[in-house]
Amino acid sequence: MTALPTFELDIRLASDTIVLGDFPLSRCLLMNDAHYPWLILVPRRNNLTEVHQLSSEDQVQLLRESSWLSQALKLAFNADKMNVANLGNVVSQLHWHIVARHSTDAAWPGPIWGKNPVQHYGVQALKERLEQLRALLTEADSSIAFTPA
Amino acid sequence: MTALPTFELDIRLASDTIVLGDFPLSRCLLMNDAHYPWLILVPRRNNLTEVHQLSSEDQVQLLRESSWLSQALKLAFNADKMNVANLGNVVSQLHWHIVARHSTDAAWPGPIWGKNPVQHYGVQALKERLEQLRALLTEADSSIAFTPA
Repeated sequence: MTALPTFELDIRLASDTIVLGDFPLSRCLLMNDAHYPWLILVPRRNNLTEVHQLSSEDQVQLLRESSWLSQALKLAFNADKMNVANLGNVVSQLHWHIVARHSTDAAWPGPIWGKNPVQHYGVQALKERLEQLRALLTEADSSIAFTPA
Repeated sequence: MTALPTFELDIRLASDTIVLGDFPLSRCLLMNDAHYPWLILVPRRNNLTEVHQLSSEDQVQLLRESSWLSQALKLAFNADKMNVANLGNVVSQLHWHIVARHSTDAAWPGPIWGKNPVQHYGVQALKERLEQLRALLTEADSSIAFTPA
């Protein structure tokens, strides 16, 4: 039996984000941009660029993880709207944006991508945001069991 | 048994698009913007704004329809990347964008939303685009049977 190849996170995604941990399918990342609560799911499959390239089972699992996270973030941040998207025009490795939007945020009502230069979290703000998200993610139920980084 | 309420398409979506027909779950629309091959799926459920508000079965069906369409459009238009997204910051009725992107298009590599003013198809170009898409949609297999408008 051939061992599965190790999953490798794209270097640009790795440098722009902080790893929160893994769902059964996806690595969960926090985008280091204080403008928006902005998470990214990266299915741990190599050499994919499109959602439709995932197996049917993986597509269902991606949506399960995405919908749990979307609902949790909407509540936690009292968001006016969740934005969920696969674009990948710049970083081709398949990744799924989940962003809590507010009618008062820097890009509203436009999309967040390419709008405002990234504004990194300050040290204390990042610490607090990570604590908040890690607490939230421990609430994931068994069907989408979350393993913290 | 109470009759299901009739599905009503948001008036702004109706005015910006041409109806191609219905998948089992979603109405399929062509955005009247000649910049990009830009389709929209609208699950025929009233009063929903978020993907995570769909039932699990509807979420699976949305992704089934989305992935079939994404793959078909990628091939038909020789796209460099497909963009799939639910934003809904302006039109709140739950709708799912499926856009064939090219590295030569007007917004590349940025997102298409809010970038360039809409450029309506000319009469002949619209006729040809609709014929092309209707031919493509007749190829949908039975699991995502498509009913033309």
